[in-house]
Amino acid sequence: MSELQCIEHALHAVAAYIQEKYRARDTLVIATKANTTDFLTEVDIAVQKEIIGYLRSHYPNDILIAEESGLDSLGTSIPARCWMVDPIDGTQNFLRGLFPEFGVSIGFLQDGVPVAGGVLFPITGDVFLAEKGSGAFKNGARMRVSTLAEPTKARIDIDFGSLDGRVPHLEKAHALLRGVGQVRSYGCSVMGFCQVADGQQDAYIPFSVKPWDVAAGMLLVEEAGGKVTSFDGTPVSPFTAERIGVVSNNVIHAACLECLDS
Amino acid sequence: MSELQCIEHALHAVAAYIQEKYRARDTLVIATKANTTDFLTEVDIAVQKEIIGYLRSHYPNDILIAEESGLDSLGTSIPARCWMVDPIDGTQNFLRGLFPEFGVSIGFLQDGVPVAGGVLFPITGDVFLAEKGSGAFKNGARMRVSTLAEPTKARIDIDFGSLDGRVPHLEKAHALLRGVGQVRSYGCSVMGFCQVADGQQDAYIPFSVKPWDVAAGMLLVEEAGGKVTSFDGTPVSPFTAERIGVVSNNVIHAACLECLDS
Repeated sequence: MSELQCIEHALHAVAAYIQEKYRARDTLVIATKANTTDFLTEVDIAVQKEIIGYLRSHYPNDILIAEESGLDSLGTSIPARCWMVDPIDGTQNFLRGLFPEFGVSIGFLQDGVPVAGGVLFPITGDVFLAEKGSGAFKNGARMRVSTLAEPTKARIDIDFGSLDGRVPHLEKAHALLRGVGQVRSYGCSVMGFCQVADGQQDAYIPFSVKPWDVAAGMLLVEEAGGKVTSFDGTPVSPFTAERIGVVSNNVIHAACLECLDS
Repeated sequence: MSELQCIEHALHAVAAYIQEKYRARDTLVIATKANTTDFLTEVDIAVQKEIIGYLRSHYPNDILIAEESGLDSLGTSIPARCWMVDPIDGTQNFLRGLFPEFGVSIGFLQDGVPVAGGVLFPITGDVFLAEKGSGAFKNGARMRVSTLAEPTKARIDIDFGSLDGRVPHLEKAHALLRGVGQVRSYGCSVMGFCQVADGQQDAYIPFSVKPWDVAAGMLLVEEAGGKVTSFDGTPVSPFTAERIGVVSNNVIHAACLECLDS
């Protein structure tokens, strides 16, 4: 089984469980993590365990990096083969939200470069998949980024993040609010990447993302014709996720960087 | 048939048509309205026509105010009986969006005060209904606003609106970004009101709403225990929608006004 097939199977394997828990979310046991806006749920842990077990059974020697504790953490050297897993990206949206913007993300990296990735949105059942050099797909249909190039006409998801993480970026936020046509904020990294990949938004600008939030998403966007860089336009990888940055349809990228710098 | 029953029936009557058009949205004929981020679709017009026809058949003498042209517009005097209809609130989300945050809104007002209102989210099928003095309901279940009182821990939907409409409010936007725990922006007024009414968000702060966006939503929030005021805390009605304002769970209201003023 290829890495991409493994990702696809693992995503489908957790879908029904998450749907069931989402329906029962009001009774979930919630434990606070670092701060009150960052909850850890039993679902997060169970989904991670299921996915990790599946990946380990197929690739027992690979490095596994995941959001919740108990797995290999990021070291100083980049492993030849590694997986990055976010069991539920958008936990707060899972807990509170009329429309459930949260997803499951699995990325596989060779020498630090994402080469296979997938995202599942459990409530709609949408599955986004990409393999390096082979394009990006939503439910089997090829995706392309949008072609809109002007920020004043664009639809852009600004991911403001937590209050603590947002404060260093307030100038950027202000610049965007002065220059962007339509502002959205869904608070879900994988949704930001998938919407750009599928042409539903022209850019996604997050102030604080983690490696497991972006490993699959970066590949999906790039394979759909988009671009991902730091705020100063330099290349990034999931191992330098803290520098991301601007995720765009490519044609609007330079204008977004300029807007951020204004 | 009561006004509320009439609203409920009219909402259910348009649900299937909207779902069908949403699935076929890529082929929709789109005409630009006032600016490029504000599209008018054939669905908008068809839905409005259907709802207006239904309301007129039951209440032929009432005043009808709706988003699209061709209906009674707001006059200088407040009518004794009037209806406010938004056929699709969140047209842009209808056209572009992984999760479909758009809704249909119908409000009925007596002497300028909303006394019956309903919102349909066609894709999930959720129906929100309220009658003055009788509470607010989501799919038949009583709703209550949240009890969270601190902005730094809150989840708040800031509706930044169009670039033109946002510029006069940039100071407010900046103050909120410095003080609010979790920021979301869905770009759909009726979703903002319904999420507050159902306790899924603690406040909704829009920079530019219209009477038909708020007629049902205000009643839903107030009947669920929440509060709607202008930015300076004074009372508002759908006829003074341009002054809205802060929509909240009530207990966080004063703190939101203070944050906006900082």
